[in-house]
Amino acid sequence: MLSRNYHDIEQEPVGEDKSVRWVLGKPEGTPNFALRVIEFEEGAVFETHQHPYEHEIFVLEGEGVAHVPGKEVVMQPGVAIYIPPSEPHGYRNTGAGPLRFICVIPHVD
Amino acid sequence: MLSRNYHDIEQEPVGEDKSVRWVLGKPEGTPNFALRVIEFEEGAVFETHQHPYEHEIFVLEGEGVAHVPGKEVVMQPGVAIYIPPSEPHGYRNTGAGPLRFICVIPHVD
Repeated sequence: MLSRNYHDIEQEPVGEDKSVRWVLGKPEGTPNFALRVIEFEEGAVFETHQHPYEHEIFVLEGEGVAHVPGKEVVMQPGVAIYIPPSEPHGYRNTGAGPLRFICVIPHVD
Repeated sequence: MLSRNYHDIEQEPVGEDKSVRWVLGKPEGTPNFALRVIEFEEGAVFETHQHPYEHEIFVLEGEGVAHVPGKEVVMQPGVAIYIPPSEPHGYRNTGAGPLRFICVIPHVD
């Protein structure tokens, strides 16, 4: 068993206004999937992109929107979002403070 | 893309004082792992048990303790815990209200 407070984990920048913390991943010995905490500063946008693996998201704090072609969903605390493999998707922070969410992905070699 | 507020998901009882909500799992089409929200009422205990799959945990609310043989860690908001496959483990709610945490597991056939 291993425990970590996510606050203690280095924030890796994603562009100028977003970051990812790799909270539980391969370095911790996890066999199948990685749990990250993603943070968007106020106004931050992650444009549409895609990759061959899924996301399972749980919103911790803030307000935002996640979008795929033809559909948007609200991001707010307690909302979980599933984005299937290879589905083009993006996000934007629409709130007055940070948008913070858990994003679990399978290990990608 | 699919979204759900975890509050809207039925709580499946685990004993008399604990519950699990299957927030994102096989019924939602997820290919690899399930994201659940576990809730312990005040004073609830889950005795030591084990299974051949891992847990990746993120504490949302409350105070508790997770234990494995010879080690305990504090559960509080922002703490992530990795419990490897087959490691005996248990939990107890030590706080004055509910203990609520995310627990991700691989799909088990």
